[in-house]
Amino acid sequence: MTVRIGLIGCGVMGTDHAMIIGQQLHGAELAMVCDADAGRARVAAEQAGCARIEGDPLAVINAPSVDAVLIASPDQTHGPLTLACLAAGKPVLCEKPLSQAASECEAIVESEVKRGKRLVQVGFMRRFDPSYVEMRQAVLAGTIGRPLMLHCFHRNVAAPDWFTGQMAITNSAPHEFDIARFLLGGELVAVTAFQPALRREKGGVAPVFMVCETAAGQLVNIEINNNAGYGYDVRGEIVGERGAVSMAAPAGSTLDLHLSHSVAYAADWRPRFAEAYRRQNQAWVNGIASGTSAGSSAWDGLCATLVAEAAVQSLQTGQRTPIRIPVRPGLYDHS
Amino acid sequence: MTVRIGLIGCGVMGTDHAMIIGQQLHGAELAMVCDADAGRARVAAEQAGCARIEGDPLAVINAPSVDAVLIASPDQTHGPLTLACLAAGKPVLCEKPLSQAASECEAIVESEVKRGKRLVQVGFMRRFDPSYVEMRQAVLAGTIGRPLMLHCFHRNVAAPDWFTGQMAITNSAPHEFDIARFLLGGELVAVTAFQPALRREKGGVAPVFMVCETAAGQLVNIEINNNAGYGYDVRGEIVGERGAVSMAAPAGSTLDLHLSHSVAYAADWRPRFAEAYRRQNQAWVNGIASGTSAGSSAWDGLCATLVAEAAVQSLQTGQRTPIRIPVRPGLYDHS
Amino acid sequence: MTVRIGLIGCGVMGTDHAMIIGQQLHGAELAMVCDADAGRARVAAEQAGCARIEGDPLAVINAPSVDAVLIASPDQTHGPLTLACLAAGKPVLCEKPLSQAASECEAIVESEVKRGKRLVQVGFMRRFDPSYVEMRQAVLAGTIGRPLMLHCFHRNVAAPDWFTGQMAITNSAPHEFDIARFLLGGELVAVTAFQPALRREKGGVAPVFMVCETAAGQLVNIEINNNAGYGYDVRGEIVGERGAVSMAAPAGSTLDLHLSHSVAYAADWRPRFAEAYRRQNQAWVNGIASGTSAGSSAWDGLCATLVAEAAVQSLQTGQRTPIRIPVRPGLYDHS
Amino acid sequence: MTVRIGLIGCGVMGTDHAMIIGQQLHGAELAMVCDADAGRARVAAEQAGCARIEGDPLAVINAPSVDAVLIASPDQTHGPLTLACLAAGKPVLCEKPLSQAASECEAIVESEVKRGKRLVQVGFMRRFDPSYVEMRQAVLAGTIGRPLMLHCFHRNVAAPDWFTGQMAITNSAPHEFDIARFLLGGELVAVTAFQPALRREKGGVAPVFMVCETAAGQLVNIEINNNAGYGYDVRGEIVGERGAVSMAAPAGSTLDLHLSHSVAYAADWRPRFAEAYRRQNQAWVNGIASGTSAGSSAWDGLCATLVAEAAVQSLQTGQRTPIRIPVRPGLYDHS
Repeated sequence: MTVRIGLIGCGVMGTDHAMIIGQQLHGAELAMVCDADAGRARVAAEQAGCARIEGDPLAVINAPSVDAVLIASPDQTHGPLTLACLAAGKPVLCEKPLSQAASECEAIVESEVKRGKRLVQVGFMRRFDPSYVEMRQAVLAGTIGRPLMLHCFHRNVAAPDWFTGQMAITNSAPHEFDIARFLLGGELVAVTAFQPALRREKGGVAPVFMVCETAAGQLVNIEINNNAGYGYDVRGEIVGERGAVSMAAPAGSTLDLHLSHSVAYAADWRPRFAEAYRRQNQAWVNGIASGTSAGSSAWDGLCATLVAEAAVQSLQTGQRTPIRIPVRPGLYDHS
Repeated sequence: MTVRIGLIGCGVMGTDHAMIIGQQLHGAELAMVCDADAGRARVAAEQAGCARIEGDPLAVINAPSVDAVLIASPDQTHGPLTLACLAAGKPVLCEKPLSQAASECEAIVESEVKRGKRLVQVGFMRRFDPSYVEMRQAVLAGTIGRPLMLHCFHRNVAAPDWFTGQMAITNSAPHEFDIARFLLGGELVAVTAFQPALRREKGGVAPVFMVCETAAGQLVNIEINNNAGYGYDVRGEIVGERGAVSMAAPAGSTLDLHLSHSVAYAADWRPRFAEAYRRQNQAWVNGIASGTSAGSSAWDGLCATLVAEAAVQSLQTGQRTPIRIPVRPGLYDHS
Repeated sequence: MTVRIGLIGCGVMGTDHAMIIGQQLHGAELAMVCDADAGRARVAAEQAGCARIEGDPLAVINAPSVDAVLIASPDQTHGPLTLACLAAGKPVLCEKPLSQAASECEAIVESEVKRGKRLVQVGFMRRFDPSYVEMRQAVLAGTIGRPLMLHCFHRNVAAPDWFTGQMAITNSAPHEFDIARFLLGGELVAVTAFQPALRREKGGVAPVFMVCETAAGQLVNIEINNNAGYGYDVRGEIVGERGAVSMAAPAGSTLDLHLSHSVAYAADWRPRFAEAYRRQNQAWVNGIASGTSAGSSAWDGLCATLVAEAAVQSLQTGQRTPIRIPVRPGLYDHS
Repeated sequence: MTVRIGLIGCGVMGTDHAMIIGQQLHGAELAMVCDADAGRARVAAEQAGCARIEGDPLAVINAPSVDAVLIASPDQTHGPLTLACLAAGKPVLCEKPLSQAASECEAIVESEVKRGKRLVQVGFMRRFDPSYVEMRQAVLAGTIGRPLMLHCFHRNVAAPDWFTGQMAITNSAPHEFDIARFLLGGELVAVTAFQPALRREKGGVAPVFMVCETAAGQLVNIEINNNAGYGYDVRGEIVGERGAVSMAAPAGSTLDLHLSHSVAYAADWRPRFAEAYRRQNQAWVNGIASGTSAGSSAWDGLCATLVAEAAVQSLQTGQRTPIRIPVRPGLYDHS
């Protein structure tokens, strides 16, 4: 069986998804490519070897020749398009965030629960990254004892001038919120946000540092640093009662040159997580073929957005802020 | 277009190939699985989701429903089966070595040259390993200046009791010979082999250490250590006139436990080179679809075997041994 | 000139100091060794090659044959003995903390300011550790741009059963408070303390996590983990506006064994900071000989204790707690 | 007791020795400094706080106010000055090589044996380097099983234009020969030397690669690369029957900057081995005070020179060359 996929959105990540679907997945076919910018859609389609271009996302979602939909369009479209996929009864892989508004995420969860079947996967691809998977296995195997703390570091080379601390929380941090829930297997229930003072001449946004607490009393300490300057660098460490497990810095080769022994950083997230995207998308396709589900669910998407909303509030008030987590519907019991 | 692949041989690596073809490749389909042991073939076929099992390799090679053949059967069958693929005019990916006898490799090269078209790829998958690719790019970019030396280390946990130093050279070392030619872009023309004295109580084979010389006067120093005891560990370093580039040790996570900071070794080569196999096989399939060729050619297979034959001779005589390299047919000009 | 040193206190660290003074310092001589336990004093004296043992600390401080005093006796004696040294007009190197009570530290500062001459050095030996020195140089050279955050990790193998989170702050954390002030060159003005819930069956103390803020708006995030289980492990990273500098994990050799590539951790702080202690003590002796001062001053000792007091309060109240820093007397202008 | 040391030679390393003796050693005093260039001697003396300068090495050796002599003058003076120290009955620490001529080394050994007491230590300071000491301990403890191979890498940034492959062997390689004997505890009995072809436009010397064999059948593979370009880099790995132990790359801090994670290399050997020099010199002084001996003996100096002579011959002839090792006098039984 070949899953025929319709791709909505041909920005940076959408174009990458086109290539992954069109050239790297087993059992999948890129059936249709859609973008408001027809030129951009054409380029992505050609690169990926896809013949059909479409301008209207709803036409993609409702096309009989499309079995499943991958949404990589701008954030504010994620919610409505995901709801449209649910209405059409089609499996959908939606890039994160599911929605920046928790209320919209809740609407999606409600709609999916009403259907009684999981169709939505959220693109928190880190759950498929071999490093995070190894870290989680160390926790599950009891190797390090019960986890007490998780340290997360998220650093980008540079953010645009208009980027704010709030955006750091709603745009970058959800990856950390989701992976923390994945690694520790529990909900985040409170967050306290801090922000150092930036004196950079050229402007830019200061890092945000958050201390989150889980229902089990663990701490999740998160640095979101969108102007780190030096490279794309994601790190994680789980500190348990007997030991600790950390992400290993990715490296293909090391260079000895100019009085320096060095490893290169990627300039952005795509090389770092290329394998995670491929595995995520393959697992999604396999799940469609086999009728099972994998990766982050709509529920996970909702939880990440709820944490982000509380973190934004904490950043504004300077106060420790509780996170409101509703009761999890049974549909997501084994997510 | 979907390339329909017939797989011959369902041992350890053959079974892995079945999984790669049947679950990870885009544009490929596992059409037929063949092994002398029908039970083994059945297991591999079922795991990979392939319906058809065959007992006779030639039936696979000549089946109209098979577009291309992957040979993973025992070493001594590689040569004859590859020749049969050439006779059938079908693309073939043959696990290394192409043949342990240089004369048989030469017969394959001759047959392919006579046909005037490259159909044979040899499974030196390291050429697709991201680490080696990065190292080669550093050389090609001139980053480290002209290469002067290549240090190679090949270590296995343990070899069977019947394993010998000669086998270390003919079985394990060809990977090093091929990658040296790939990284340095020239032929090996002489080899001096050494072997330390082993005093292990339980027997086993001592490592072999070889100093190879290239036509351009570079040194390739190779440790083949099939009883290293501690893990599967492959390393490489190219030392140039201005700097050096090294393989980074593969690591997904690091563990802090019991007064030790550690990274795990794989127990064998499959996790270390899983990605290289996937990329190799995908490139092979892509090449079949597009009519181009990638990876190691029959010529490369011949050269690796010629170096191995000279190294075995050097190990026996204790002398520096020249390597006879014939004139390269034009068919392999851009291999 | 040889500085004749009187050592007070022959516990674990005092005994180490005896060996350092008696065998590793240039221009120093261990003149007298003192401990309430005469047997312990005798062992330390013999190991270090010192002939004279004394039971009364004040006799040491006031002995004409003692030029300078090193205090390594229990914490509660630090304050009174340091004051006695000031009264005797003798240079003193006092193990940290100067006193666990800020009021006592202030009395020492006042006494020293009244004398108008710096005689007190506090044993925050990390300021002499080559790794921290390199990190500070990277900051001073502007290599990483203006520092925005400092991440500190302090992990011990295990704490005694009676150890508490408060002790983690007053006993272990002062090292972090002092090194943060040293690395960032500013005062800490607020602290928020967190503590994850421990479920260890055998009891023990949970880690403490603190977010400190400097007068310049930087963040200092500190994990104090006295029950880390796996080893003695101190880490630090300064994140600047353009880059980051981190402590390198100390390592003499790496081991490949049992499917693992590993580096050993020390079981306690002494091997890790042996070189820092030697350099600190040599600098102290050199300063006495030359009439200059080095290392942490009484003022630095006071500041570390003030931060600790606020952190304890924050741990108890769960609130962000401002740190009261008095006006720095001119005597400490270039400390 | 204070050992009064006379220093002969105030070049780069001699000046460092003056500082070590005059400022870092316990129980030692820099009594006299000597160099043919009086200005150079004055600078070294002043830096190290030594009052007395002398122009004649023999005057230093025979001065009643000098208890022991450190020879750091040019290589060709090592032999005669060491013999003069023996004649004067004074302990001497002679920078390596003891002599570049094996015959002269033998004369020193004979002279010392005739006296019946060890007075000569050769400055192979690596035996005091914490990394090598750890590696040796791993061997002695049986951690890695019986050693089969030792891989040594010696790389400098650049050699002068007049430097030759022969000099690489007689000047740099003796450090490797000595440490190999120290780590493996046996003699080197044969050597085969190789040299890649250099095509550097600016000239310079090509690396030398040597495969040495020990009496116990182990291999010692040595790269001497005096024009490595990128930094001062010494590495070592002992491969045993069960595991391997390697030198850890020295690092105080790591830097994240410009898309690169890096550790700095030293530009020359002094920072890398500063601690080894201090420990060596302290052990020498302690040994003089206690009447024992430590470090490399005259016998070790002789053996290193014998290996170098054979290696030079092998480089010239292209042949495996046996190393003539005489019978070790009993005086050196526990060296």
